[in-house]
Amino acid sequence: MSAAIEYWFDFVSPYAYLASQSIETLAAKYGRTVDWKPILLGAVFKNTGSMPLTMRPPVMAEYFKHDFQRSARFANLPFVMPDPFPINTQNTARVCLWMKQAAPHLVGAFVRQVTLAYFSGPAAINEPQWLAAQVQALGLDGAAAAAACEDVARKDELKAACEQAMAQGVFGAPWIVIDGEAFWGNDRLPQVELWLANGGF
Amino acid sequence: MSAAIEYWFDFVSPYAYLASQSIETLAAKYGRTVDWKPILLGAVFKNTGSMPLTMRPPVMAEYFKHDFQRSARFANLPFVMPDPFPINTQNTARVCLWMKQAAPHLVGAFVRQVTLAYFSGPAAINEPQWLAAQVQALGLDGAAAAAACEDVARKDELKAACEQAMAQGVFGAPWIVIDGEAFWGNDRLPQVELWLANGGF
Repeated sequence: MSAAIEYWFDFVSPYAYLASQSIETLAAKYGRTVDWKPILLGAVFKNTGSMPLTMRPPVMAEYFKHDFQRSARFANLPFVMPDPFPINTQNTARVCLWMKQAAPHLVGAFVRQVTLAYFSGPAAINEPQWLAAQVQALGLDGAAAAAACEDVARKDELKAACEQAMAQGVFGAPWIVIDGEAFWGNDRLPQVELWLANGGF
Repeated sequence: MSAAIEYWFDFVSPYAYLASQSIETLAAKYGRTVDWKPILLGAVFKNTGSMPLTMRPPVMAEYFKHDFQRSARFANLPFVMPDPFPINTQNTARVCLWMKQAAPHLVGAFVRQVTLAYFSGPAAINEPQWLAAQVQALGLDGAAAAAACEDVARKDELKAACEQAMAQGVFGAPWIVIDGEAFWGNDRLPQVELWLANGGF
């Protein structure tokens, strides 16, 4: 079995939402699994002084809002620009980290479900009660998931993940690493697929 | 005959180099021509306070230099990072504008040839004498092309093109417009193709 694909993302990233829906299927096609690595973009943006696409100068922000919609249609996925956007996703990420321990085989389903809910919303994806309901719908302990939001171990784990991301040069999402080779963006999926198919190119 | 595709670019843009090699073939497949629109990225970057990818913070600049190479391999094209980079391309753009009048059917060949030379270089693509030789290789008047570099009409035309680009929201290259729909980046070519095939999506 080849090494898992590292998939660094923030639940609030529109392009990560799109890639999240297909990355596990794509990986499986080439005998790979996905190591879901939730982080906070606000943290890694410090690497480059970057900022959310919708907070850039108006001409750029408008282009990206349009491109989110169009790229979603291109991927046959729904897209409704969330309001408010962006939001903090610490709790969402902590529950995701909790799931990696409680039910590793369901993490992909959880990420797809939560991002789809947020981008076809409205959905309060950072609220412990909302998260508890999602987790329960997957047949797991909702109360335990909600508790993870305040669990110091999960907080520390998320902090460490953001530091690890910065240390290895992550500056955006989705950030996909295959055997050390990093690809940034949903629009790099065709290159990701060729890399998986050929073991590099 | 459907309207020409607007193709806004700077001869110094690595991703525009990649897209330039295939855009005319892609357009022709769907009964379209390309209206080559050389501009200076330094001018339109003012729209957004943007800067060349290789002048961003080191972690980002290094990623892009790597991605230029990989995206070129993905497109089966050579890529040697030019040095110096970036350079001014006023003369290159002015000769391109001259060609749009002198030999419109050869503009695509000229753009492909010049960008390929620069990105598999070294090649002094902004030097009037170098440009004259390229134009002569296409069977045209090299001296007339070199003179276009100092022609006030071409200078004004380039200035007007940059202003037009800014006015319609261009903030990067390649910038492809199909019947009013704008696509930014070489990595949007799959969307461009679907848009051409279906008349939108």
